Amino acid sequence: MNRVYNFSAGPSMLPLPVLERAQKELVCYGDTGMSVMEMSHRSKMYEEIIAKAEADLRTLMRIPENYKVLFLQGGASMQFAQVPLNLLSGYKTGKADYINSGNFANLAIKEAKKYADVKEVASSKDIGYTQIPDWDEAEFRSDADYFYICGNNTIYGTRYTKLPETGSVPLVADLSSCILSQEYDITKFGIAFAGAQKNIGPAGVTIVIIRDDLLGHALDITPTMLDYKVMADKGSMYNTPPTYGIYMAGLTFDYLLQQGGVAEMEKRNVEKAKILYDYLDESALFHNPVRPCDRSLMNVTFVTGDADKDAAFVKAATAAGFVNLKGHRTVGGMRASIYNAMPIEGIEKLVAFMKQFEVENK
Amino acid sequence: MNRVYNFSAGPSMLPLPVLERAQKELVCYGDTGMSVMEMSHRSKMYEEIIAKAEADLRTLMRIPENYKVLFLQGGASMQFAQVPLNLLSGYKTGKADYINSGNFANLAIKEAKKYADVKEVASSKDIGYTQIPDWDEAEFRSDADYFYICGNNTIYGTRYTKLPETGSVPLVADLSSCILSQEYDITKFGIAFAGAQKNIGPAGVTIVIIRDDLLGHALDITPTMLDYKVMADKGSMYNTPPTYGIYMAGLTFDYLLQQGGVAEMEKRNVEKAKILYDYLDESALFHNPVRPCDRSLMNVTFVTGDADKDAAFVKAATAAGFVNLKGHRTVGGMRASIYNAMPIEGIEKLVAFMKQFEVENK
Repeated sequence: MNRVYNFSAGPSMLPLPVLERAQKELVCYGDTGMSVMEMSHRSKMYEEIIAKAEADLRTLMRIPENYKVLFLQGGASMQFAQVPLNLLSGYKTGKADYINSGNFANLAIKEAKKYADVKEVASSKDIGYTQIPDWDEAEFRSDADYFYICGNNTIYGTRYTKLPETGSVPLVADLSSCILSQEYDITKFGIAFAGAQKNIGPAGVTIVIIRDDLLGHALDITPTMLDYKVMADKGSMYNTPPTYGIYMAGLTFDYLLQQGGVAEMEKRNVEKAKILYDYLDESALFHNPVRPCDRSLMNVTFVTGDADKDAAFVKAATAAGFVNLKGHRTVGGMRASIYNAMPIEGIEKLVAFMKQFEVENK
Repeated sequence: MNRVYNFSAGPSMLPLPVLERAQKELVCYGDTGMSVMEMSHRSKMYEEIIAKAEADLRTLMRIPENYKVLFLQGGASMQFAQVPLNLLSGYKTGKADYINSGNFANLAIKEAKKYADVKEVASSKDIGYTQIPDWDEAEFRSDADYFYICGNNTIYGTRYTKLPETGSVPLVADLSSCILSQEYDITKFGIAFAGAQKNIGPAGVTIVIIRDDLLGHALDITPTMLDYKVMADKGSMYNTPPTYGIYMAGLTFDYLLQQGGVAEMEKRNVEKAKILYDYLDESALFHNPVRPCDRSLMNVTFVTGDADKDAAFVKAATAAGFVNLKGHRTVGGMRASIYNAMPIEGIEKLVAFMKQFEVENK
């Protein structure tokens, strides 16, 4: 069976060399006589695996020493609660500002309202999240405990190309669908977090990068497992971490370094996205509904404006080996998620297929 | 490299046929053209994987229809908070009874005290947890919201061979290190949970089996991700579950069914443990410190009584291919964890090695 071009929004394609290396090592890792899955997380061999994963991620993202890197569980959805539980100055009294740029920002806001005095300082909900909301810094509260954004909106295909200036208020960013796809200046963030299942590895690992002055302030009601300081003090091993997922993440980090790091990924991603957007801008059948300056490099949405034609396209594309192009159930249409692991030829072939479909469906 | 006999307490040995199948399928699962790691959790192919995993676990454990099976994250340590957050009738006012039988029961008690009026109804802490505490049912509170035990104590090598009678108070059991090792009557439990990394699969999946009347009572402060009802209503897919870990668990369940199920595992485990305990009872060098009626089938602890000799034994055993026999750092000595995946010849060879060591170290 040939590999398909998998445009899933996540879990999504992983680099083939990473999968092949994992396959080779699955039953027996090096000369250990066991699988990575069978290793005690406290063994020297596993400690080397997690230490290398962290070191490589630090190199890739140029993470300064005053930031901790945590390997946690629960995905971004767990962070929606964990962030307020750890950063608020008081239960129900601490303040948090949010920008509502899409479904996952909206869910984060809903969750934060359990714990915080939340202010939605900007929103693009009423225009279908087709752009990053314009914000007015005069709306930001200088006494907020943190300021929250979702860096790339997987469902709507938008991303921040500049970050809000929040002064001394820590900026918290959900980078689940854009981590390692472009360069970020980590010092702009108090916390940056990401689920692994788009650009990193299998679902079940959550990367949290946190500035060390933000540790140690968890509310009393916080479960121990959700206290960033506990995890930071224990090197993510308060209990057994998701050992195999972290190993897989490490293989991806190692591969990305070999490929030239994040700068090279960003260059390729800009090039890859341009091929699709250029075609969408000239197509008479398909179009991308996003404000051009906010277009995502990772998730490219498009519609024909006719639900039946959308469905026919998805069906034909699937049969041709371009799978998971159906848009999120909440918005319909199509979406091509083109994370780091999607090769440029996958996009070239998809565009060729779309052109052919357009000719046949005038 | 030959496979070692890995006596790790967890993560620990997995059945070789399970690892070999995972290796074969790693890059491409069936005719899907992708790895299981790359599958959307909402795809039909993945839905089949998780549905089969659940169905097979239900068969293996004879789980009645009025119990939900959840695939969660965070390990038993997350359950230490999740149980009180979901079962207490009020924050700080709800009552919970615990038996303190070891390190993990003790941690569960500590965590519950954040949220509950906790009563420790029995404890073996002051005798070094060398037995399951004797309990007096007159100490149990009939108005408790739940009653908590740890079914097998990994560090101390003890297990419950009968369960406390808690009447209408739901019994909650941490079965992390004994699930699928022996038969349990699920109807005795309100909740039974287990981290995967001993008898099931890689770390990062937590199985929660919960009676359906216990759903829907989470305290207001509960993160959405920790609300059992949310997860039950969404078939463990409120967000992206740890897809690959669940797939691996499913491979183990399938393998166990082929082997004859839990009854057959229990038979083999009784036989395996007997070989070790019989030798320990007759040895002049090694002995097992646990009250015989409470001996674990999964974790067999032993000591020489001389820390230097213990260290010499662990070193010699490691060199001979019997790895991870060092006892937990809190108790010292040795521990052989002999989960389902440890073959009987691993134990026979270990005992032969111990006998030889004994002869040479009189």
